[in-house]
Amino acid sequence: MLQTVIDAIEPASSEFRNAAQTRIDSLAKPLGSLGRLEDIAVQIAAISATMTPAPRKKCTIVMSADHGIVEEGIACAPQEVTAIQTINMLKNLTGICVLSNANGADLRVVDIGIKPSISHPGLIDRKIRPGTANFAKVPAMERAEAEQALIVGIEMVKKLVDEGYNLIGTGEMGIGNTSCSSAVYMAFSGADADLAVGKGGGITDEVLVLKKQVISSALKLHQPDPNDPLDVLAKVGGLDVAGMVGCFLGAAWCKVPVVIDGFISAAAALTAYRLNPLVRDYMIPSHLSAEPGYNHIMNELGLSPMLHLNMRLGEGSGCPLAFGIIDAALNMLNTMATFDEAMINRDYLVDIRP
Amino acid sequence: MLQTVIDAIEPASSEFRNAAQTRIDSLAKPLGSLGRLEDIAVQIAAISATMTPAPRKKCTIVMSADHGIVEEGIACAPQEVTAIQTINMLKNLTGICVLSNANGADLRVVDIGIKPSISHPGLIDRKIRPGTANFAKVPAMERAEAEQALIVGIEMVKKLVDEGYNLIGTGEMGIGNTSCSSAVYMAFSGADADLAVGKGGGITDEVLVLKKQVISSALKLHQPDPNDPLDVLAKVGGLDVAGMVGCFLGAAWCKVPVVIDGFISAAAALTAYRLNPLVRDYMIPSHLSAEPGYNHIMNELGLSPMLHLNMRLGEGSGCPLAFGIIDAALNMLNTMATFDEAMINRDYLVDIRP
Repeated sequence: MLQTVIDAIEPASSEFRNAAQTRIDSLAKPLGSLGRLEDIAVQIAAISATMTPAPRKKCTIVMSADHGIVEEGIACAPQEVTAIQTINMLKNLTGICVLSNANGADLRVVDIGIKPSISHPGLIDRKIRPGTANFAKVPAMERAEAEQALIVGIEMVKKLVDEGYNLIGTGEMGIGNTSCSSAVYMAFSGADADLAVGKGGGITDEVLVLKKQVISSALKLHQPDPNDPLDVLAKVGGLDVAGMVGCFLGAAWCKVPVVIDGFISAAAALTAYRLNPLVRDYMIPSHLSAEPGYNHIMNELGLSPMLHLNMRLGEGSGCPLAFGIIDAALNMLNTMATFDEAMINRDYLVDIRP
Repeated sequence: MLQTVIDAIEPASSEFRNAAQTRIDSLAKPLGSLGRLEDIAVQIAAISATMTPAPRKKCTIVMSADHGIVEEGIACAPQEVTAIQTINMLKNLTGICVLSNANGADLRVVDIGIKPSISHPGLIDRKIRPGTANFAKVPAMERAEAEQALIVGIEMVKKLVDEGYNLIGTGEMGIGNTSCSSAVYMAFSGADADLAVGKGGGITDEVLVLKKQVISSALKLHQPDPNDPLDVLAKVGGLDVAGMVGCFLGAAWCKVPVVIDGFISAAAALTAYRLNPLVRDYMIPSHLSAEPGYNHIMNELGLSPMLHLNMRLGEGSGCPLAFGIIDAALNMLNTMATFDEAMINRDYLVDIRP
């Protein structure tokens, strides 16, 4: 199934991209003056193959999983916080919840690999294994497990699209997951740990030095093949990250826009892009992560974040904030007056777009 | 009345600022990890002198006025566009309208100095004069007219606050108003035209050269006193800009937060700050303007924009987008779980805030 999905991804419609830009250039404003709002509206018109994209039904998928690498003492919180905060999300208590509530967005929380056995109303049980192994010593998971995690992400998006959702956010909860995200980015790029490893939720300078050493050593040990994204995920990835890779693939397959949150989500987006570069047509970045590797990944993807909020919470917290901007962009395309409707002669216009 | 208002402005409550930050530090997340959302929530708690700020009732005030300086041929559109787009705003057709609609925000449109006589349902007639004079040749307006424009802005905010609004945006419509905004900024700062003058809605490279020359010459001609903001406004300002200065003063006087839009709004914010630096406690920046002077003004105010959208429309268009972020920030303060409620031990936390 996985390769079938990857091979079935199509580019967004260049016909509708051009038509939407032409429509936006006919709206009563200086050419290009709504900047990124125009880009987003054009992108969603191209994705949806329509000049009048429907209002968005919005949901962030949170992939929750544990990480064996926390045994090395490089995380900002004890492992049990993964399970606790996953339950708290279902109780509508965490950061992603309050930001989603403020933006009319829903949440789906998936146990894709939390270490303890937990059950709670609303928790979607797609546990592949009870946390990854410690990739400082052994591969994080089997290749088949990584493949299964991607399929979970694809199936989650497919189900949401069947329920009428048409704007997807990507979130995670997993103590230790900035470590595997840095490892994934370093495996693909060859970047040094100083460029790719940060303080995550919050660690001391001393622990940061250790975190860099642990990740660099693990990459030397496993030698993941940068041309084989599943090898990278299996050796130094995480179940949450792999599930998010599946979300990006699934969104592109189902032709719905998908929002990138922070660094972990960006590492998953990069992995999906390495599996099929066409997925980029469906991606919308949200906020500038405080993690040093984030901008390098955005550069590779040719994207840049619209929100500069100095956030480093994770959970998908940038997504509902971006949803609000996206709603506004679509309202512009769908309801703003043209020069003709506004009774303004557009002949005076100078196009100063770069 | 004007000096009474300026003198009556008080700082936001440091007691509630500290209490709100303490509350936010008790929420179940790494310390500081919601970044600017935390800053905004703390700021509004301090402004409102409450730990539980009410949901926001939001309105952007659009000051519309004409500018005699357009006689010099330095604007991107013919002067009649000011009146036409003002009417279109009242018909719910322009950029600020569609973005406000998407964010549950209202609009008030004020004729503070449109050149032609116009009337339209909803248009608030506070016309001080039919456009400014051409400040390339004579002062833009009388000092008493500038004072009157400030009072219009103050009264507009006071009326909105009396109607229950508690979050104000600042917008404008006025062909030629980037020119007077650059002139105001240059008068205060002594900055060179190359640092302070941009292409506005969209002019050619040739017209940009002329625009810089015209503004620089006007400043040499009038020699506005940088220590006398009303002298600056009267000699090289605009009625829309002066009305917005009044909005900033009025918001601080009424103790409600006020959002800065782009460059023109920033020039008005700077002018209000020069009249009383305490107004800064009440200001929230929105988006990074494409105008070169914008960042210089933000540096003087010690503020930085949260939205990087490459927008240059004006009209107050950044305000409704910021309103969405502000709503989310307040929802965090009011409804997110504490460590105790989330049953997480916070002792592991490392504070990595800069």
